[in-house]
Amino acid sequence: MRGVSAPPQALIEADAARSLAEDIQGGDVTADLLEDRIGSGYVIAKEAAVICGRPWFDACFRQLDPDVALEWLVAEGDEVAAGTVLVRFRGRTRALVGAERSALNFLQTLSATASQTAAFAKALAGTGTRVLDTRKTLPGLRQAQKYAVRVGGGSNHRMGLFDAVMLKENHIHAAGSIAAAVAAARSRHPAVPVIVEVETLDELRQALATDCTRILIDDFSDADMREAVRIADGRTPLEVSGSVGLERLAAIAAAGVDFVSVGAITKHIRAIDFSMRLGDPP
Amino acid sequence: MRGVSAPPQALIEADAARSLAEDIQGGDVTADLLEDRIGSGYVIAKEAAVICGRPWFDACFRQLDPDVALEWLVAEGDEVAAGTVLVRFRGRTRALVGAERSALNFLQTLSATASQTAAFAKALAGTGTRVLDTRKTLPGLRQAQKYAVRVGGGSNHRMGLFDAVMLKENHIHAAGSIAAAVAAARSRHPAVPVIVEVETLDELRQALATDCTRILIDDFSDADMREAVRIADGRTPLEVSGSVGLERLAAIAAAGVDFVSVGAITKHIRAIDFSMRLGDPP
Amino acid sequence: MRGVSAPPQALIEADAARSLAEDIQGGDVTADLLEDRIGSGYVIAKEAAVICGRPWFDACFRQLDPDVALEWLVAEGDEVAAGTVLVRFRGRTRALVGAERSALNFLQTLSATASQTAAFAKALAGTGTRVLDTRKTLPGLRQAQKYAVRVGGGSNHRMGLFDAVMLKENHIHAAGSIAAAVAAARSRHPAVPVIVEVETLDELRQALATDCTRILIDDFSDADMREAVRIADGRTPLEVSGSVGLERLAAIAAAGVDFVSVGAITKHIRAIDFSMRLGDPP
Amino acid sequence: MRGVSAPPQALIEADAARSLAEDIQGGDVTADLLEDRIGSGYVIAKEAAVICGRPWFDACFRQLDPDVALEWLVAEGDEVAAGTVLVRFRGRTRALVGAERSALNFLQTLSATASQTAAFAKALAGTGTRVLDTRKTLPGLRQAQKYAVRVGGGSNHRMGLFDAVMLKENHIHAAGSIAAAVAAARSRHPAVPVIVEVETLDELRQALATDCTRILIDDFSDADMREAVRIADGRTPLEVSGSVGLERLAAIAAAGVDFVSVGAITKHIRAIDFSMRLGDPP
Amino acid sequence: MRGVSAPPQALIEADAARSLAEDIQGGDVTADLLEDRIGSGYVIAKEAAVICGRPWFDACFRQLDPDVALEWLVAEGDEVAAGTVLVRFRGRTRALVGAERSALNFLQTLSATASQTAAFAKALAGTGTRVLDTRKTLPGLRQAQKYAVRVGGGSNHRMGLFDAVMLKENHIHAAGSIAAAVAAARSRHPAVPVIVEVETLDELRQALATDCTRILIDDFSDADMREAVRIADGRTPLEVSGSVGLERLAAIAAAGVDFVSVGAITKHIRAIDFSMRLGDPP
Amino acid sequence: MRGVSAPPQALIEADAARSLAEDIQGGDVTADLLEDRIGSGYVIAKEAAVICGRPWFDACFRQLDPDVALEWLVAEGDEVAAGTVLVRFRGRTRALVGAERSALNFLQTLSATASQTAAFAKALAGTGTRVLDTRKTLPGLRQAQKYAVRVGGGSNHRMGLFDAVMLKENHIHAAGSIAAAVAAARSRHPAVPVIVEVETLDELRQALATDCTRILIDDFSDADMREAVRIADGRTPLEVSGSVGLERLAAIAAAGVDFVSVGAITKHIRAIDFSMRLGDPP
Repeated sequence: MRGVSAPPQALIEADAARSLAEDIQGGDVTADLLEDRIGSGYVIAKEAAVICGRPWFDACFRQLDPDVALEWLVAEGDEVAAGTVLVRFRGRTRALVGAERSALNFLQTLSATASQTAAFAKALAGTGTRVLDTRKTLPGLRQAQKYAVRVGGGSNHRMGLFDAVMLKENHIHAAGSIAAAVAAARSRHPAVPVIVEVETLDELRQALATDCTRILIDDFSDADMREAVRIADGRTPLEVSGSVGLERLAAIAAAGVDFVSVGAITKHIRAIDFSMRLGDPP
Repeated sequence: MRGVSAPPQALIEADAARSLAEDIQGGDVTADLLEDRIGSGYVIAKEAAVICGRPWFDACFRQLDPDVALEWLVAEGDEVAAGTVLVRFRGRTRALVGAERSALNFLQTLSATASQTAAFAKALAGTGTRVLDTRKTLPGLRQAQKYAVRVGGGSNHRMGLFDAVMLKENHIHAAGSIAAAVAAARSRHPAVPVIVEVETLDELRQALATDCTRILIDDFSDADMREAVRIADGRTPLEVSGSVGLERLAAIAAAGVDFVSVGAITKHIRAIDFSMRLGDPP
Repeated sequence: MRGVSAPPQALIEADAARSLAEDIQGGDVTADLLEDRIGSGYVIAKEAAVICGRPWFDACFRQLDPDVALEWLVAEGDEVAAGTVLVRFRGRTRALVGAERSALNFLQTLSATASQTAAFAKALAGTGTRVLDTRKTLPGLRQAQKYAVRVGGGSNHRMGLFDAVMLKENHIHAAGSIAAAVAAARSRHPAVPVIVEVETLDELRQALATDCTRILIDDFSDADMREAVRIADGRTPLEVSGSVGLERLAAIAAAGVDFVSVGAITKHIRAIDFSMRLGDPP
Repeated sequence: MRGVSAPPQALIEADAARSLAEDIQGGDVTADLLEDRIGSGYVIAKEAAVICGRPWFDACFRQLDPDVALEWLVAEGDEVAAGTVLVRFRGRTRALVGAERSALNFLQTLSATASQTAAFAKALAGTGTRVLDTRKTLPGLRQAQKYAVRVGGGSNHRMGLFDAVMLKENHIHAAGSIAAAVAAARSRHPAVPVIVEVETLDELRQALATDCTRILIDDFSDADMREAVRIADGRTPLEVSGSVGLERLAAIAAAGVDFVSVGAITKHIRAIDFSMRLGDPP
Repeated sequence: MRGVSAPPQALIEADAARSLAEDIQGGDVTADLLEDRIGSGYVIAKEAAVICGRPWFDACFRQLDPDVALEWLVAEGDEVAAGTVLVRFRGRTRALVGAERSALNFLQTLSATASQTAAFAKALAGTGTRVLDTRKTLPGLRQAQKYAVRVGGGSNHRMGLFDAVMLKENHIHAAGSIAAAVAAARSRHPAVPVIVEVETLDELRQALATDCTRILIDDFSDADMREAVRIADGRTPLEVSGSVGLERLAAIAAAGVDFVSVGAITKHIRAIDFSMRLGDPP
Repeated sequence: MRGVSAPPQALIEADAARSLAEDIQGGDVTADLLEDRIGSGYVIAKEAAVICGRPWFDACFRQLDPDVALEWLVAEGDEVAAGTVLVRFRGRTRALVGAERSALNFLQTLSATASQTAAFAKALAGTGTRVLDTRKTLPGLRQAQKYAVRVGGGSNHRMGLFDAVMLKENHIHAAGSIAAAVAAARSRHPAVPVIVEVETLDELRQALATDCTRILIDDFSDADMREAVRIADGRTPLEVSGSVGLERLAAIAAAGVDFVSVGAITKHIRAIDFSMRLGDPP
């Protein structure tokens, strides 16, 4: 998906700086065997992918050579075929080889999340079900991965523990009832979404009687899931979560559940295969 | 593998702090609906894995409650079966739920790398071939992942651009010959390993005539790979790199190649499924 | 309000470290004129206040003397009278005088926000109207101030640009209608609250016909405000924002508006007067 | 006051980056609903103020769009009337709305300190009394606020515990006499200012007999204050401190005291009301 | 000199963390060949020195093993003979060897500055002349080195550009006269020391007629230096600066100059030779 | 030596930022007495030196004035005579004087290491012996100093504990023999250099029978050193370490030892005397 708003540049620069520091440290002992002259290069996708990570890619190159010229041939969020040339650049050759690995590591990791998200989104296209991410992210990269999910056409669940209340069995037990738990949460945090997790159709009915923001139906059978959608009748959005493969998506979407949250799109990574080459593209 | 030396505690604490900051920020809006009392919990493995990430897991909990008590039932590097209880802890309940996701994100990501490495190492057991990692790592987590590779029984290739020279076609072309390129590298960086990448058996013979540290044979057929081992005859270690699946390992090991470097163990992540529960283990 | 969940300890420690570094730098040139022995001291409130900032206060002292003993006589969120002794401590005297100013600067600033918020909350007690904060915070202290608002009995509006959509005139104009703008926002960010700002009763009616999360009625007369509440009839919460003095609160609450967001509680600071003294409390 | 030297750019950039990170995090969910095109805007003062914070304002915008064009119509330190257009800018609209709140938070907070300082300085104009700040600053913003004090026409007291000795009753008691305490401080820190706090006219006479740098007369009556100035007779500068309202300044200045240090200018903040608007100024 | 106040612990911890990160990174590949058990060790001075750097030394060890036991046999600032055992410790052996180099690097560098300072202070003992440091410090270590100067018995000149005005020829030229330059500085920064650099006896007389804090007599002959002291007659302290060897100190002290500032004590480093050994001291 | 690859720009910028922050903090109180206009200046070497530190020098100036123009007249690694003008610059005068001390502190410290290294390298010119550095570096400056060693014509030993195994007496004792210790190290870290320290000719023979990377002959007499070279016969490189003066180099080189590692080039600093002046060069 094009046009997604990125994290602030300072966060991106800090991410790039940390990665370059890991890789280069005291200097590139191979690069200094060759003269530092102006050269050009390009990156090619060796498999189909949804492209994500351009701002980090650029930051890696610019931090090593502020005068590098980067010309992108695809937009962030574009779906590209294997063999597509993504970007051409021209700058000092030492900067190019010094930035290569860090820049590609961002691109291959974030494009992995965007591509995997896009696969889920595509499987749900035409249905009313939307894919959400979770808090199961790579340590240190949550903002970047949440951005990649949006680039891939998914939507963000809560960013962390601070921006939504999630009421589970222990809160309900402590408050005495679902109604009491939601009321307590609303009273304490009136401007924050309140999500309630229910385990039975009866609990679902209790949750629907409150003004909670969303209801998570956990471990429901397909039949119960369909019944839940019927009961909810659009009053409050429903969410299914957990380890959902592409194959179970059809059932969820057919049932008419509003959201499915998928840890796999951020915790599992199948890095996209990109290759950087010096010289001009073929 | 037990007993692997970890990165310095300050790096681990910084990793943990960054992750907790991403997740908690201004405060946990769900946690403050419940009283903060002393409670206990445990983590269970829901699938078989090689455990890695204990220091990061502990740092997440200790940063939120310095008085938390953590009792590990398995060692770093242990191979555990599904259903194994890994660790028990007791501390303030708000700290426990606040640290949970960050602690598990480290554990599931680093155990993924250790487990995947162990699978390669196990496939090579009994042969003379060793598995190496690459610089294709998750941005910001190189040190942690390089450590996870060692925990999984693999070995570290160079840490970055600074601690080994890697001579490729363009260096050899610029120097005039493999001999000249190695001599230049040795002269410039005499105390640093020099790795030469060759593309033919003839280049291999030229590289063997130098005092380079290791020779990378790139894109060799199985027959040429066997011939290369025969020619090298133990004088200089040989390495095969690239996208190697478990299935091709047998051919490499049978040929007698010394090292195989595998990007997949650090760039692809199949997060291990761990679950944290409050209360006492079953 | 007691029992509010605080930001993660690492953020608090970083805040404290930054403040101590500003104040002490190369060393306390006065402190080293006296012997470093064990001493005690206490902090007294010189005016009535709602106490906020204990975790930062403690971190300042502990960073200079890990063995300092701190005994709080009041809880975070307590309303105290002038003359109340808040906390007693015992530790190395150099640490005590070195931490004093940093610790008090946190306490006086965060208690200012908590106290001011409590004044608004008290003025609204018994009504259905709740006080929200804004993004008009002190640079670098947003998390701490958002926490102080909760401690003072207020509630948090969005934390930043990332956790709620705020549709204003320009978005509505670009989308063609309020309905189209909300639909676009819901489609793009289905799991994030969507707030719509309206300027007339007619726009209000259009917004009520959408599934937006909250409606901000901007610059309405008191009569229109009352009419807006009548029209909304509890279907969607209404918010009034802007520079609201305590005196206008009565009208807002009487009208039955759900939320009033007040920049003053975080952007204006009337630091609470606390005094630290060495020795034992009177 | 114009032409005041600012903190180093790196500190300003770090302040701006921290503030932008607080506000934007993973991305601006409202901004990405609109196209990112080139637009312009301006900031208007909604009340009279002494302007302070331009470098931080600029840094916020530049970090999000390095190509933004900023044209300031007033200088740092200028006193402006309500309705004055301060600055016009042109850049990518997403950067403009992303930077808005952070940039204004710096401007409104630092202009508050500069304006309040200027009010004190103006009340003292034509007298020999100068206004000093204290260490009662907003945590994390000491350098910025000390700069704002100078921009407002005030002067900086010590920056922290490291750059001046402050001798109080306990030091004098430990050394045996004021003379002995000053001698000890001079011996230990010969190149650092030594300030002595006295509580009686007799102690003042003892302090005047030393070569201390400045004498703080604490809690003196107006009559004693006048007598103190007569006794000091210009030999050593005198300072009055504490919570001084504008009304008591007349007495202090009339008495001829050299310095008055005022915590209120940095610990209390009445944020100046600035407004940013897109489009061209009226 | 004993009892000198150190920088805040957070700065020391950050220094230690940075050094350990440089040295250890992903792990100690030698240490993990041996079992990690409890062991002891000690540090011995292989030459005479004034000891400085204990807090940094301790921080390096504690960051790797919070439970390490450290027993210092000498105090910070003590002068020790070659062969002295400085400290004994007991902890996990991997932590001991991991911290060794970082801990010793701090100790050998800061003791170098303290020892060199002490040599100057000793050469001036019994005279009225005091040794000052300069801003010629090792990048990143200014606070630590300024502290080491005090530990060695020297005194700190200004910490940086922010805490004293230094008027040189260009300021005097711009203002029109020394009197005008000092008046301008006093007016702008009334509470900050003002140091005037003069190049002739006539300029000295002009400077003495102002209320500047100190006068720097630059490149004076020995005869002029003595004459300068006679003219100043104790009214304003005099300072000699620049590259001063121990041999010229006698002339400066004999002339009666108050201060001599010496870049050599912080910019030149002759690292003290310390040796860490495992086991018990002899 | 020209053309040495530098650390990544982000590390250099961070070093520069830290240094500028130490020096300037809240502002340059002297600079703001003069108008801020465009001026020029230059740096002159007051003694012969090998120049090192240009990237840090430039970063200090650029961080204070992004538009400063810097024209270097010498290359990094050039050997210059006393009196040489190194660099001319033109920019805002406040930036020039603000950056001066930080920029020179980097230049004088790193050129010290490069120059001292070059002295060793020159003494060894024409022999087969190469100079290596050690881990005895200034805390926080390891990467910069390792780079300076290369600029001076020396070579880097291991960067830290992570990139080479160093087997000493205790490892050999624990493993049972040198052969066993090397085998264990190779098995654990097959792709990392393994250095063995031996104390006798017999141990040397044992080490030569392994495939270790380098052998450190510690505390050998000159005769034994020559014998060691004869025995090794080029099979494995030999290294002599420790506190080696220029005078002992001749014996080492005459014996034919391959490497000599010298702590003095990084732990001892004799800062090079550079002077910055405003205006045009003579």
